[in-house]
Amino acid sequence: MTSAAELAVGVDLGGTKIQAALVDAAGRVLASHRLETDVEAGPSKVTEDVARCVRACAPDFSKIVTVGVGVAGQVARESGRVYSAPNLRWTDFPLRERLERDLGVPVAVENDVRAIAWGEWKHGAGRAIDDLIVMFVGTGVGGGVVSGGRMLTGDLGIAGELGHMTLVAGGRPCTCGNHGCLEAYAGGWAIAERAREAAQADPEAGRELLTRSEKEPLTARVVSEAAEWGDPLAKSLLEETGSYLGRAMVGLVHIFNPRRIVLGGGVIDGNPDLVAQVEAVIRDQAIAVATERLEVRRSKLGQQAGVIGSATLALHRKDAYGTGTTPS
Amino acid sequence: MTSAAELAVGVDLGGTKIQAALVDAAGRVLASHRLETDVEAGPSKVTEDVARCVRACAPDFSKIVTVGVGVAGQVARESGRVYSAPNLRWTDFPLRERLERDLGVPVAVENDVRAIAWGEWKHGAGRAIDDLIVMFVGTGVGGGVVSGGRMLTGDLGIAGELGHMTLVAGGRPCTCGNHGCLEAYAGGWAIAERAREAAQADPEAGRELLTRSEKEPLTARVVSEAAEWGDPLAKSLLEETGSYLGRAMVGLVHIFNPRRIVLGGGVIDGNPDLVAQVEAVIRDQAIAVATERLEVRRSKLGQQAGVIGSATLALHRKDAYGTGTTPS
Repeated sequence: MTSAAELAVGVDLGGTKIQAALVDAAGRVLASHRLETDVEAGPSKVTEDVARCVRACAPDFSKIVTVGVGVAGQVARESGRVYSAPNLRWTDFPLRERLERDLGVPVAVENDVRAIAWGEWKHGAGRAIDDLIVMFVGTGVGGGVVSGGRMLTGDLGIAGELGHMTLVAGGRPCTCGNHGCLEAYAGGWAIAERAREAAQADPEAGRELLTRSEKEPLTARVVSEAAEWGDPLAKSLLEETGSYLGRAMVGLVHIFNPRRIVLGGGVIDGNPDLVAQVEAVIRDQAIAVATERLEVRRSKLGQQAGVIGSATLALHRKDAYGTGTTPS
Repeated sequence: MTSAAELAVGVDLGGTKIQAALVDAAGRVLASHRLETDVEAGPSKVTEDVARCVRACAPDFSKIVTVGVGVAGQVARESGRVYSAPNLRWTDFPLRERLERDLGVPVAVENDVRAIAWGEWKHGAGRAIDDLIVMFVGTGVGGGVVSGGRMLTGDLGIAGELGHMTLVAGGRPCTCGNHGCLEAYAGGWAIAERAREAAQADPEAGRELLTRSEKEPLTARVVSEAAEWGDPLAKSLLEETGSYLGRAMVGLVHIFNPRRIVLGGGVIDGNPDLVAQVEAVIRDQAIAVATERLEVRRSKLGQQAGVIGSATLALHRKDAYGTGTTPS
């Protein structure tokens, strides 16, 4: 069990920045620190920077009982090895082992969105819910699923790759190598790609997007801004996005029968209306009994979801690790 | 804990027959009994027939510690109420309560395919596996998922409706009211529908299927038989079915990261090659790390999966019920 006085450091490790925060058992952020990720320097140097960031958050390191790290990639549950983290250009790196040796406390390593899901579950919009789907729609689409009061990990620890469920069999190519994944329609990179194609196919309708894309790269954020400004093509692209997300979620509702769904991430933050749109698709199309008690909410922890979640899952896992795996 | 000497009766309750079996804790069938389902007579009469079937399996009823019933429909986890069972024409029927009153032992009620999943997990092709997906492809498509050593139930007990995951957004209409569900492509009724459409669209290629459909209704079994006989259209319809099943399974592999997948049901039994085909699609298209240890197997318990599974889940659940819910 975690006690209220226990402190952990949570780290959100991505391709552009290392963000760390000192977090208590109530999910409060007491201090934080941030460094740029020096991807070029390789995994050992980045790991040193992570440790530096952790120590910078907690001058009195003796009070820290555990450290959690959320990594944008696939992570092995037991060993804390990072199988693959494309943004960091890592393959099969023993992050947990290295950090435990350096820091001298138990370290938990998890996929970044699964860490976010832990945060929303324990301290955010999914609090006290035993059957919960958390989906974050940013550049990529990821998630975490709580079923029967436990976060699902799967055989090796990589369960929850909700962005890579097949949504359109034989559809758009995805960065994962498969075709028709949800992410290939609703991820930020895919929204940008769909916008580019639509604007090029109909330059008249696409004028606003094409004009904006002369000044800056055409990203999902640019599409959101154009939609907010009133551009019909951008609006319809986002409506389609909501429809894809909704139809994927109908499938997940049938698979998991959740009590609550929490949606977050850059694409949702840029278009908060998507939450209501996804809910409407679910209520319209899912088996009635599966939606009776279902709630759909927007995430609560925002930018801090990652660090709070990483610290929280580390606090919850440290007992499971036992003393055997604590570095001597 | 279940002891080896404990006996349960498992019931498979469908729209055409009530099948019951006396099953021991090792999953062996010691006796069985079967009645036709008198759907017209209504739920009370059918429930009496279920009780009659149970007693017929176990002349010395004092040795029975529990009864499990698998129903083709949606079942509430806690109460054992059947929300909806279209083949029985039931809505919101308190099956568990009625049977407990009648039989005087704890009764567990579950969806029929979830019961099958219990059977395959404890005594069949999924034995001793903590992360398991069981999918049965018959007229409908259903499933059960074990994650971290527990069968997922979801909030209300209806998790595992794998046939109703969206596979082709905006695709073929499904019996559930949604569009593009896996079942609307790979379920027996959908294979028959696709075959009819394909044969009518190209009567030359469809000659074999059209000729056969003059003698008997064009079902998935007829398509399988035509394919076995060598008909190219029937063969390609089944290959497409394998491709749909495979692509749905790629999504489920990313969602659940299973150690093993077990496939069964009438469509698989009629076309055992589908198992290898589904496996090939997964190995080709899923994220590599998720498939490293993954095994794909055919179900082992065949026609008895339902009764063995129902009895088994009842034996495993009776402790959870405690004495409070045992009828007085």
